Amino acid sequence: MENKKNLSIIKIGGNIIDNPTELSQFLYDFSKVEGNKILVHGGGKSATKMAQNIGLNPQMIDGRRITDTAMLDVVVMIYAGEINKNIVAQLQANNSNAMGFSGADGNLIQSTKRNHPTIDYGFVGDVQKVNTSLLETLIFNEITPVFCAITHDKKGQLLNTNADTIASELAIALSDIFEVTLNYCFEKPGVLYNAEDDSSVIFTINQELYSKLKTEKAIHSGMIPKLDNCFNSLSKGVQKIRIGHHKMLQDAKSICTTIEL
Amino acid sequence: MENKKNLSIIKIGGNIIDNPTELSQFLYDFSKVEGNKILVHGGGKSATKMAQNIGLNPQMIDGRRITDTAMLDVVVMIYAGEINKNIVAQLQANNSNAMGFSGADGNLIQSTKRNHPTIDYGFVGDVQKVNTSLLETLIFNEITPVFCAITHDKKGQLLNTNADTIASELAIALSDIFEVTLNYCFEKPGVLYNAEDDSSVIFTINQELYSKLKTEKAIHSGMIPKLDNCFNSLSKGVQKIRIGHHKMLQDAKSICTTIEL
Repeated sequence: MENKKNLSIIKIGGNIIDNPTELSQFLYDFSKVEGNKILVHGGGKSATKMAQNIGLNPQMIDGRRITDTAMLDVVVMIYAGEINKNIVAQLQANNSNAMGFSGADGNLIQSTKRNHPTIDYGFVGDVQKVNTSLLETLIFNEITPVFCAITHDKKGQLLNTNADTIASELAIALSDIFEVTLNYCFEKPGVLYNAEDDSSVIFTINQELYSKLKTEKAIHSGMIPKLDNCFNSLSKGVQKIRIGHHKMLQDAKSICTTIEL
Repeated sequence: MENKKNLSIIKIGGNIIDNPTELSQFLYDFSKVEGNKILVHGGGKSATKMAQNIGLNPQMIDGRRITDTAMLDVVVMIYAGEINKNIVAQLQANNSNAMGFSGADGNLIQSTKRNHPTIDYGFVGDVQKVNTSLLETLIFNEITPVFCAITHDKKGQLLNTNADTIASELAIALSDIFEVTLNYCFEKPGVLYNAEDDSSVIFTINQELYSKLKTEKAIHSGMIPKLDNCFNSLSKGVQKIRIGHHKMLQDAKSICTTIEL
């Protein structure tokens, strides 16, 4: 059997993006992660702030933004422009050869506009296809891809896309070529039994425990789509998934939650 | 002597960016240009509009924007975000495998912050170095790079950079590897004797004629830095430079101005 190379896919959430000191520390830690790696970043609050600044009224349903034309312009500006390019510039300063992408670049991530029976999410994309061969070429040329949460439909339309989903779809597609570890980094040390108590980290979640936690309603509702994504990714070939604070990237003994089938 | 491959570098100005129909026609024509190619785009009026929308007061000196921190955020958003990603998505729809870049991405264009004796231009970059080996790898993988006018200093700072200069610096650096044709596309059919008369195109400008035109003040002041850039590029190895309407890309008989040493 062929020996696959390792690849770490690391997703950071909005709370890190919104805190420049935390972001800078994260990017330093990320730049020290050895081997092949990809960064996926969320958007944070700046798109909402910019939308309000220019007189738009951003709408959310179930934690997902409703993206009309004006709001799409804003998220493209902020995610693919301001946030992505500042992250890339900081990683370059840390001697990490980062290259920032939306899914439109190199047709790396192609989506279709969501067609929901009851809710019109607007210009929101569901991932269809990852261009793994081009990503492989970039990674073998020692490029570190940095993805924002924008994709396209290959017909000229950009689409707002959930960053957790982008991370898991990249992980699934690239697990044909690499042994993929997927890391979800956020402000907490892991998935918590008690959302108010940072010391209540659940070290390992498998499907049995996950069902139990959902039944007991012992899991925060925002965590459910994230964990659903995780189990889906593991069942499709991703080797390992961790959820926790970004210090787990540097300290192997750092507490975090590992997701297992 | 080794046979170099051809490369077309095509720069489009703000007036094409500001006109969606014209831009769409240009991008179709660009996608049909055969062989290796790079697109460099200016910014148009949308950065100024956005700055005004959020209460900033953009300042210009000699046609160059004064870029303070707030204005840098705006140009990064608009140039690297909105404009660059929409161009890439449209080119992908035209089956051109475009990938959008700032100079920070892959450290493709490194600059230094301008240090002017009397004017503080703010976060404005002068190009120092082009990463030709990575660009060569991308081009040999059939990627069409699309550059916005943002670079970085490799120390974490993004810098606003003149798009004409980016096009000429790319052309000079890549002329070691490729036979480079540099095309400046704008709304006029070429350099005009009489700015009011589109039929007064000067078909060829060499250095002798250029000196004469400047002495006679027969050349529009906005054209002078562009032509200075052209002569500099030709003296440093760029094979051919043309200035004209983008229809020259598709129609070899189309009128335009050719610059010669």
